[in-house]
Amino acid sequence: MTIQEKAAAMKLDSPQMAAAPTEIRNNALLEIKAALLANRKAIFDANAQDLEQAQQNNIPEAVVKRLKFTEQKLLDVTNGLENLTALADQVHQVQFIRELDEGLTLVRESCPIGVIGVIFEARPDALVQIASLCIKSGNCAILKGGSETMHTNKVLFDLIYHAAVQSGLPENCLFQAELREEISALLSCHESVDLIIPRGSNAFVQYIMNNTKIPVMGHADGICHIYVDKDFDVEKAIPVILDAKTQYTAACNAVETLLIHKDALDILMPRLNEALKAHQIELRATHEIAAQYECVPASEEDFATEYLDLILSAKTVETIEEAVHHINRYGSHHTDCIITQDKAAAEYFMNMVDSAGVYQNCSTRFADGFRYGFGAEVGISTGKIHARGPVGIEGLLTYKYKLFGNGQIVADYASGKKAFHFKNLK
Amino acid sequence: MTIQEKAAAMKLDSPQMAAAPTEIRNNALLEIKAALLANRKAIFDANAQDLEQAQQNNIPEAVVKRLKFTEQKLLDVTNGLENLTALADQVHQVQFIRELDEGLTLVRESCPIGVIGVIFEARPDALVQIASLCIKSGNCAILKGGSETMHTNKVLFDLIYHAAVQSGLPENCLFQAELREEISALLSCHESVDLIIPRGSNAFVQYIMNNTKIPVMGHADGICHIYVDKDFDVEKAIPVILDAKTQYTAACNAVETLLIHKDALDILMPRLNEALKAHQIELRATHEIAAQYECVPASEEDFATEYLDLILSAKTVETIEEAVHHINRYGSHHTDCIITQDKAAAEYFMNMVDSAGVYQNCSTRFADGFRYGFGAEVGISTGKIHARGPVGIEGLLTYKYKLFGNGQIVADYASGKKAFHFKNLK
Repeated sequence: MTIQEKAAAMKLDSPQMAAAPTEIRNNALLEIKAALLANRKAIFDANAQDLEQAQQNNIPEAVVKRLKFTEQKLLDVTNGLENLTALADQVHQVQFIRELDEGLTLVRESCPIGVIGVIFEARPDALVQIASLCIKSGNCAILKGGSETMHTNKVLFDLIYHAAVQSGLPENCLFQAELREEISALLSCHESVDLIIPRGSNAFVQYIMNNTKIPVMGHADGICHIYVDKDFDVEKAIPVILDAKTQYTAACNAVETLLIHKDALDILMPRLNEALKAHQIELRATHEIAAQYECVPASEEDFATEYLDLILSAKTVETIEEAVHHINRYGSHHTDCIITQDKAAAEYFMNMVDSAGVYQNCSTRFADGFRYGFGAEVGISTGKIHARGPVGIEGLLTYKYKLFGNGQIVADYASGKKAFHFKNLK
Repeated sequence: MTIQEKAAAMKLDSPQMAAAPTEIRNNALLEIKAALLANRKAIFDANAQDLEQAQQNNIPEAVVKRLKFTEQKLLDVTNGLENLTALADQVHQVQFIRELDEGLTLVRESCPIGVIGVIFEARPDALVQIASLCIKSGNCAILKGGSETMHTNKVLFDLIYHAAVQSGLPENCLFQAELREEISALLSCHESVDLIIPRGSNAFVQYIMNNTKIPVMGHADGICHIYVDKDFDVEKAIPVILDAKTQYTAACNAVETLLIHKDALDILMPRLNEALKAHQIELRATHEIAAQYECVPASEEDFATEYLDLILSAKTVETIEEAVHHINRYGSHHTDCIITQDKAAAEYFMNMVDSAGVYQNCSTRFADGFRYGFGAEVGISTGKIHARGPVGIEGLLTYKYKLFGNGQIVADYASGKKAFHFKNLK
């Protein structure tokens, strides 16, 4: 079966998946947990094959670390499955009830989106997480993981799929694409697939966004800023900047650019320079900073670069307005922070910076679904349509309108014979 | 200035537009109302020019009727402006507040999307409505109306724009594109324009959807169904079918296909056939209906056709499952109705039909923002991402996350030194 045929079959089965009761979806998650634990040997054996191949292909150590499916990772994903099972169901929730007129009642109810395509990095735990989020939210899903973990993914997917179907979910609930060529086939399925979620490098996400008519939820890059205002607490600024740069340097919510109010420079820079050096962070700064403090000169291009490395660009600004303007122009609308003790300045910054996350006095690394308390994360969106910022299960849901009548026709309301009274019942 | 340059300038001004307080946005709406009333002569003169040109170009009467800007339409749009002013502000509303930990508080707040491009039909009242909805919701907007009303649009837009700017909204709040060529320029502005809303014919909306990377909200076609179940009330069925077909035949929520349970045929058809004839509606039915009742034979293609005319296709189904399957396969996921007295059948149908609106015993023509009590309508969306169904001001909004801290870093939570406690405060 081609991806196109599979997607079309899924589309027709998706209402059945959407209608699956909470207990069946939750039970499927627990069955998956049991299947993974019962088949740990098969999983680890397949993973050993992937690791061997990675070694033969000289895959970098950092990537190999992600490929490796350890006892700890098995424990993490099975714990994740249990937490997800315990999470309150957000599907089929009544959002509002409005009586339009006597005997004519409008109900808005949350429901799954339908068919989701997820293309993700070579991490076996990601496969388990994504499949389980789709099941919990009642969506059908086509999954394509990184090819470096193909053996592990095959075993994991088969276990997940069979546990899901045996728990009563429809035959077309999940499908795994295994070949790289299948990505372009998936991207062509705009009549069957409702949403694509790509995870991976900037270039990869950009490629996906440019090559499909299907709505895409995600983020290509993350050029996050910290702006140090004139009225700031250096005791807060230094640890926040260091954490935002070093706690996980390759993350999209790591800081890349520091904007410093000119009046903050003399207090901030000596302490900062020392701290950056201690952490082997290279500072690339504009000349007004470079003239006074030891650092590499920054070019215009630095401010449009997501380093994902121990490099930080910096420039001074004359005013908070200039900082906001710089962020809105060069940023990725991801997460940006102001370090200030001034409430009015924070308010101005947080209202005017056009980003999914606007922070005061804390690390940009907090931009994450788990840290926001969503229980699970699908990804982070820098788009403004549908979900924005860290996306939990809510981002995999839409709603439908149910209208219950007893023979009402529009002509009676158009002619004035009847009138709406719009009573909100919930 | 090109559209691209204008859109880029708007993008940078959009946070200022978003931050405009409720009073300034509401005041702008009232100033627009006053400007339209004070300049009625200039508006009607320009409209006379458009009507003259329409006559010269042999524009069909139905279109001319929409072009015509009468005293009544002026009254309607100025009343609309007043109602919109009175509508509660949905921008900058706190959606939730969650304390992640002591002194670390997450607030989710609604905010405008940013820059919206709206391409709409040749109707001067549409220009006023769309501009005012964008102002009310704090969005910048690029507007392109049908060229048949270019003179009227020019006068209306100038009045609206100057009233808006004089009320304190930013210079780049609104822009009118006047040339057809500018549509493709607008569609290329994916770095500046956040959302495109196209209104018009199926082919036109399809063209827009296929030619831009910007998210599109709208609907191409509306093949809506009424399914008459076996346990039904013929006294409800006949008026609902007639209203759904005739109350506004050219609307996207008019019914196009009737599905009839085989056991309902003998009660429904004699009464229905008489009623359809009385309203000059052509029935195109499959052979099992055509064999018994006078009507035109339907082809497979009929079930994939949006007639927008006094034609209705019909077929029988053996089961409710078959009806649902037909609707999910041939429908537009717009609005579909079941006529039944059986609660369980209604529940099954409304859960399994994958449409924005699922109705029981009432006309599909109710699918409309005003009739749903939204106060204003941007359009109707058959997509599942962002807004679905009739879209009110909510569809022009997104949200942002504000995180207030006092120096918190992620490393402390990763190391276990600190732990989140997730207290929902609102």
